[in-house]
Amino acid sequence: MSGRAEVACPPEAAEFAHSLADRVRPIVRRYFRTRLDIHSKLDESPVTIADREAEGAMRDMIAATFPDHGIRGEEFGVHRADADWVWVLDPIDGTKSFVSGSLAFGTQIALVHKGRPVLGIIDQPITGERWCGRIGAPSLFNGQPTRTSAVGTLAEAVVYTSAVDHYALPERERYAALAAAARFSRSSHDCYAAGLLALGTVDLLLEGNLFDYDILPQIPIIEGAGGVVTDWQGEPLADVRRFDTVLMAANAELHAAALEVLRGN
Amino acid sequence: MSGRAEVACPPEAAEFAHSLADRVRPIVRRYFRTRLDIHSKLDESPVTIADREAEGAMRDMIAATFPDHGIRGEEFGVHRADADWVWVLDPIDGTKSFVSGSLAFGTQIALVHKGRPVLGIIDQPITGERWCGRIGAPSLFNGQPTRTSAVGTLAEAVVYTSAVDHYALPERERYAALAAAARFSRSSHDCYAAGLLALGTVDLLLEGNLFDYDILPQIPIIEGAGGVVTDWQGEPLADVRRFDTVLMAANAELHAAALEVLRGN
Repeated sequence: MSGRAEVACPPEAAEFAHSLADRVRPIVRRYFRTRLDIHSKLDESPVTIADREAEGAMRDMIAATFPDHGIRGEEFGVHRADADWVWVLDPIDGTKSFVSGSLAFGTQIALVHKGRPVLGIIDQPITGERWCGRIGAPSLFNGQPTRTSAVGTLAEAVVYTSAVDHYALPERERYAALAAAARFSRSSHDCYAAGLLALGTVDLLLEGNLFDYDILPQIPIIEGAGGVVTDWQGEPLADVRRFDTVLMAANAELHAAALEVLRGN
Repeated sequence: MSGRAEVACPPEAAEFAHSLADRVRPIVRRYFRTRLDIHSKLDESPVTIADREAEGAMRDMIAATFPDHGIRGEEFGVHRADADWVWVLDPIDGTKSFVSGSLAFGTQIALVHKGRPVLGIIDQPITGERWCGRIGAPSLFNGQPTRTSAVGTLAEAVVYTSAVDHYALPERERYAALAAAARFSRSSHDCYAAGLLALGTVDLLLEGNLFDYDILPQIPIIEGAGGVVTDWQGEPLADVRRFDTVLMAANAELHAAALEVLRGN
């Protein structure tokens, strides 16, 4: 998604994105760690209810404030798909973490201009941690600038992935080779791992088999914190709905080192 | 560790254990997410420094308050190994999570009477979450009673494990069979997963290749919340320093279902 003219993210859009994340927090908190009562009462999981309620609330706010903007969400599909500006919403990224009471999940919000994400938010509704990235601006963690790490070798690098079983077999083998060359590897953190990459405590994040709402919010955050985002061949991510492979690295040197392994060179 | 006469945990010991966890919190917080500066300055990792400082502080408090008690810690070894009452200390369980900035770690403290854990604490120093279990009393989460889940079948069960690569090959295959039969499985949470089991949001926790300080604090917490703790053969955990396999289940029915798979029946 590089090589195009830079599009600025309107400042009022960033402020508005924060208000969307603020709106989602109490909804997600209400359903967190409530599996049993609600599941048995309504025959629907709390994560489904929370997802729907939170996405609905965000859609109402967007429709009221930016009626010309499009919306894509996991729960309610696409609205105005051909709009120049499209909000991409995922109230609970890391469903399995949420369901099992772990904090390794987050709300993801992106604003996309003609296919390119210009604004991204990852919000952890329980801890109150929030990452925000905007094209052309330093990424912020809880309002303060945050930078990816300077770790330049695989041997020093901490690698995260959402789940090894997201990968098809060839990708799984290449991931295993990378993890074996790294300092150590961890899984099961979903978008929270992208937050840690932006904080400089994780150095490489590998993903596979993801939808656009899983990954788009992370791109401005990682790039605005100094990181590099491509697929596993080193190509810019295409403007598509589904991503087979995503590689996020703390810096260009580490990105090149990871590609060596992922390409099988 | 069943079949022996019940030993009560002295109430003053429980209060004291909370004060140990309180003392550790600011130390761990000071070093969390500080990898780069400190690592480069002192050529020691922050986790090592925090571990040592926190364990030293707890040892001083124990020596001052219970001079006859023994102490076993990861950093400074054994003091008065033959004492009737021994404190088992692990300031940072989940080193990899701590190092990489994840919240999926915790401080673990146990009081052991003649080889049997009578008191356990898991404390998350950043979020301020605390689990406490005492023999013969309901386990507490942030001061409120907490119960394991009533999920009785593998198909409904959420399974956690610290890391699949902790297991030798036969255990790895049996774990994989269990995970395949479960609703879903997650990893990379260390003692925090035991907290989730006590909260009723995780149903099975499988561990392998652990030291006593990794596992002893969790036993009173899980048992006092209604769960069952054995090895993968269903045998009570022996009074040893190293555990090859540990199975913690939300209830007896689920424990039996898990054993069927783990024994290969």
